[in-house]
Amino acid sequence: MTLMKPQDLIEISRQVRENRPLVHHITNYVTVNDCANITLCAGGAPVMADAPEEVAGMTGIAGSLVLNIGTLNRLQIESMILAGQKANEMGIPIILDPVGVGATRLRTDSAVRLLEELDITILKGNAGEIGVLAGAEARVRGVDSDGLKGDPVSIARDFAKDAGLIVAVSGVTDIVTDGNQVYLIENGDPMMGRISGTGCMAASVIGVYTACGKDRVSATAAALAAFGIAGEKAAAGSGGPMSFKIRIFDELAALTPENLAADSKIRSK
Amino acid sequence: MTLMKPQDLIEISRQVRENRPLVHHITNYVTVNDCANITLCAGGAPVMADAPEEVAGMTGIAGSLVLNIGTLNRLQIESMILAGQKANEMGIPIILDPVGVGATRLRTDSAVRLLEELDITILKGNAGEIGVLAGAEARVRGVDSDGLKGDPVSIARDFAKDAGLIVAVSGVTDIVTDGNQVYLIENGDPMMGRISGTGCMAASVIGVYTACGKDRVSATAAALAAFGIAGEKAAAGSGGPMSFKIRIFDELAALTPENLAADSKIRSK
Amino acid sequence: MTLMKPQDLIEISRQVRENRPLVHHITNYVTVNDCANITLCAGGAPVMADAPEEVAGMTGIAGSLVLNIGTLNRLQIESMILAGQKANEMGIPIILDPVGVGATRLRTDSAVRLLEELDITILKGNAGEIGVLAGAEARVRGVDSDGLKGDPVSIARDFAKDAGLIVAVSGVTDIVTDGNQVYLIENGDPMMGRISGTGCMAASVIGVYTACGKDRVSATAAALAAFGIAGEKAAAGSGGPMSFKIRIFDELAALTPENLAADSKIRSK
Repeated sequence: MTLMKPQDLIEISRQVRENRPLVHHITNYVTVNDCANITLCAGGAPVMADAPEEVAGMTGIAGSLVLNIGTLNRLQIESMILAGQKANEMGIPIILDPVGVGATRLRTDSAVRLLEELDITILKGNAGEIGVLAGAEARVRGVDSDGLKGDPVSIARDFAKDAGLIVAVSGVTDIVTDGNQVYLIENGDPMMGRISGTGCMAASVIGVYTACGKDRVSATAAALAAFGIAGEKAAAGSGGPMSFKIRIFDELAALTPENLAADSKIRSK
Repeated sequence: MTLMKPQDLIEISRQVRENRPLVHHITNYVTVNDCANITLCAGGAPVMADAPEEVAGMTGIAGSLVLNIGTLNRLQIESMILAGQKANEMGIPIILDPVGVGATRLRTDSAVRLLEELDITILKGNAGEIGVLAGAEARVRGVDSDGLKGDPVSIARDFAKDAGLIVAVSGVTDIVTDGNQVYLIENGDPMMGRISGTGCMAASVIGVYTACGKDRVSATAAALAAFGIAGEKAAAGSGGPMSFKIRIFDELAALTPENLAADSKIRSK
Repeated sequence: MTLMKPQDLIEISRQVRENRPLVHHITNYVTVNDCANITLCAGGAPVMADAPEEVAGMTGIAGSLVLNIGTLNRLQIESMILAGQKANEMGIPIILDPVGVGATRLRTDSAVRLLEELDITILKGNAGEIGVLAGAEARVRGVDSDGLKGDPVSIARDFAKDAGLIVAVSGVTDIVTDGNQVYLIENGDPMMGRISGTGCMAASVIGVYTACGKDRVSATAAALAAFGIAGEKAAAGSGGPMSFKIRIFDELAALTPENLAADSKIRSK
């Protein structure tokens, strides 16, 4: 077990600051404002566009693409396919957040279709969502994970290897793996589960970090560590879930490359 | 005139904490994030889904269904009907918030259709909205009530009896009645009218409270008292409408069953 | 170079307070909640409705109409045309915010169509967006301006004269011109660029201010000054971008007509 090197984290974080990548989101209407603001606080620039007529054009000027099925509809899936094809053509990363997959057939079918028709770079979800897609015994209740039977690290690693993508599992310990390399991230705070949207926001931060540089496994781990550190700092002394939520944006915006390197708890397994 | 028994309020509040009910919302895109977060702060779990293909499936795993016509469109009404039929089949409560009914024909026609085709459990609105649906002389300006001619308690009670549902009228004094029992709730603060979304949020809290237990009239009154108490506490010392808004979430999340019992002002008339 | 008269600003501000104008928005789903709340904080009442069946009806009871193409789709454009025709018929102001125009063809075509088919009263955008529509050499990156070649004041003034509307350009110095009169507004703070939605919110504040009174050039300048002052006050001592955002609502709500007159920096050029 080793830790990710501080100089690597500083380098990833500096690249974000230098590039201020544009992150195109096709996402749900519940947490979309949170995604826009967390993208800014993470050092990127957000753009949200979902009309089929313009999604490819918007992805064409972006550094990464975030797809989130939180309030899915059939038209939106078509837009996701169009934007995703453009992203694949350009070689920019696609982050898929399969919100609530397993809760309804539309969500499961749509997530599977996106995984089949697009070359998804990073699949990010809670243990239940990843479990459903990995074919493990898992349950999803609405948009919350209701648990996963088996070892989440093995399930994530095997699924990443089989599907040829990076799997990021959010939880008390976040897991990031491409099937070979496995990172475990211990940053974060239970308060993050008491507000709506932290999962969606995490995907946006991954969108910002993976738009710069080539080592996308490390960048994904760095993104989750950065967001988790912001959560830890925000939780210290916050009065309740919504004041906490306000503070997590402020803390992420204030996080320096040096802070990230100093406070991250990323173990390589 | 009697007060609701403290032990009843403690019991309702405890059932919420034990069950953490899933509240399915089909709602407007303006205040949807507020609804998600207030559901969490009230002790429930929110899920938002409105595609016709999945609404029945999502309602199928929920403890209650909140329908809000704030940014209505024809497709959404179809989804509301489908979800509502499932809710009726399951016997879980449907809370209808007829936002802006009377302001346009689409809203009035749609609200009437929902009331006709579904067995709505609780109809929650401001005095103008309830008045329009009750056939009283009422005016709605955009999404704000412009007043109601006549005694709101009698109008609400008669409409509840005729329509066979619970009517909840928000205002300086909230009214909750099933046509026989009438509760008047004196909790709340004028600051709640200075931000967008408190009406929508109140419906979410009712969704959380009525998903547990059988006495839905009492649960509705308890929900409005809890939200009102949070409003009172939030208003004390807040710097302006938006800081107030942040605090109302925090205060509701911090409200214990004992606080609810001690601070509620629910009169039975 | 002269300053706008304090008594004019007090008068505009008082008219807002007396009328509490209803501002109908057809806008994006990213910042719509911010628009609703800033409308309230500016002294107006917000209503959001975008179904083609009801937009004309809703505009029919409004004092102004705000059109924002931030998350454009074809159906929404039809609704904008219908609502805009009603606004023109009634003589109430239409504020168009051409978010991201130039970034995709759909946005450019749609903004041009709205300008052609409707009598837009105020066109508000950043330098890049206005430049694109004025036919100047300008670049838009997602929804951010990437700069404009040439003198923005001349470009705005010439375009306002040619198109017969008021042009409002947001930036370090805001520009408001109808082709003859030019106001430069120096209020604001760089923090306003670090959160999502300030541009959209500015359009809502313009919607509130221009709904009252006939001198819409002055009212637009007053609106931008008011919002800018709120930004200055909010920035003083705020902990980060999101606490700043909360404070800008509170500060605008607290702004008196006298504060506006005292703190505005509006130069007439």
